[in-house]
Amino acid sequence: MIMQSSIEKFLDDLASGAPTPGGGSAAAIMGAMGAALVSMVCNVTIGKKGLEAVEPEMNALRGQSEKLRTRLQAMVAEDVAAFDALMAAYRLPKVSDSDKLRRIEAIQSSVRAATETPLDCARACSAVIDLARRAGEAGYSGVISDAGVAVLAAYAALRSAALNVYINAPSLKDREFAGRVTAEADHLLESGAHRSEAVYALVRGRVG
Amino acid sequence: MIMQSSIEKFLDDLASGAPTPGGGSAAAIMGAMGAALVSMVCNVTIGKKGLEAVEPEMNALRGQSEKLRTRLQAMVAEDVAAFDALMAAYRLPKVSDSDKLRRIEAIQSSVRAATETPLDCARACSAVIDLARRAGEAGYSGVISDAGVAVLAAYAALRSAALNVYINAPSLKDREFAGRVTAEADHLLESGAHRSEAVYALVRGRVG
Repeated sequence: MIMQSSIEKFLDDLASGAPTPGGGSAAAIMGAMGAALVSMVCNVTIGKKGLEAVEPEMNALRGQSEKLRTRLQAMVAEDVAAFDALMAAYRLPKVSDSDKLRRIEAIQSSVRAATETPLDCARACSAVIDLARRAGEAGYSGVISDAGVAVLAAYAALRSAALNVYINAPSLKDREFAGRVTAEADHLLESGAHRSEAVYALVRGRVG
Repeated sequence: MIMQSSIEKFLDDLASGAPTPGGGSAAAIMGAMGAALVSMVCNVTIGKKGLEAVEPEMNALRGQSEKLRTRLQAMVAEDVAAFDALMAAYRLPKVSDSDKLRRIEAIQSSVRAATETPLDCARACSAVIDLARRAGEAGYSGVISDAGVAVLAAYAALRSAALNVYINAPSLKDREFAGRVTAEADHLLESGAHRSEAVYALVRGRVG
């Protein structure tokens, strides 16, 4: 549904006080824009005179970026669903003891999903950064700034998704799981910072 | 037109080998997402019990973020128009001497527009970073990660827009103008890096 709404309507909904869509959906869209721009660089490079040698690699690269784009586009709605489920769990009755127990279990299972969804988004964005590197190295020079925008969007999306992991992890009663997802988010962030800055520097150098 | 297309269609068009939409439009949309998320934080904070003291400031902040969002949303189409005009200028006939002169003039005027549009986008994104700071400082804690996503989106958009200034500036025959826009992009980037990292650190601290 949300992917079918116009960009204007999505931005209006994002700006509103409604709980969804929020930063999680914005992160998935930024990541998808990063993947889309990698595909664009591939599509422009494929068939360019003088760049025949990189064509097989550009074909393979486009296959990977389009797969990640499909995944990230699905996450836009998944993030909304995860957040809505969490809000619904908080609204469950808490009169009897069995009510309370059921509510706590529903909240915990929803927080878990609301933490896994952005972590999955962060993983996909991390993969987009690596694809943007090859697009920036071997892509046609006329669209090299697009490879730069791809990596900037993917890294901002990765950091945004990580923030959503960090804001939900403290509510998890399963501290082992919380520790594991937080550590993975930390690792993706640190490695993503280095890799994305290297791609940016490479692109900045080619832009002139 | 482009703002009325669905998110899915926009991403498909972005991924295609067509010259527009490209990184410039993606940058404007990221900036608009940043402004929208500042508005969201304001909208959620306004009317919250215990946060009455910041309500007048949140109202003023929302006024500014919505103004910037309107401006950035308009830039999505402006970037496409500037790029299309540049492509059209390059395709002008170059048979006679007067053809050639007219073509060069059209190209130069189009490159100028294609440099001014992203610079304007970078300026607006820089302003969004400052608004995100106040949203991150004074906004309701339940949506504080959204203030973080706002600043990450705005800074990525600023860097993306600057890349589009840098890729076009070398084609400008007016070197005084080229030097001026490049210096302004440099300054926005440097100052934006410090300011956005400060907002991110502030939000990261509040997220826990």
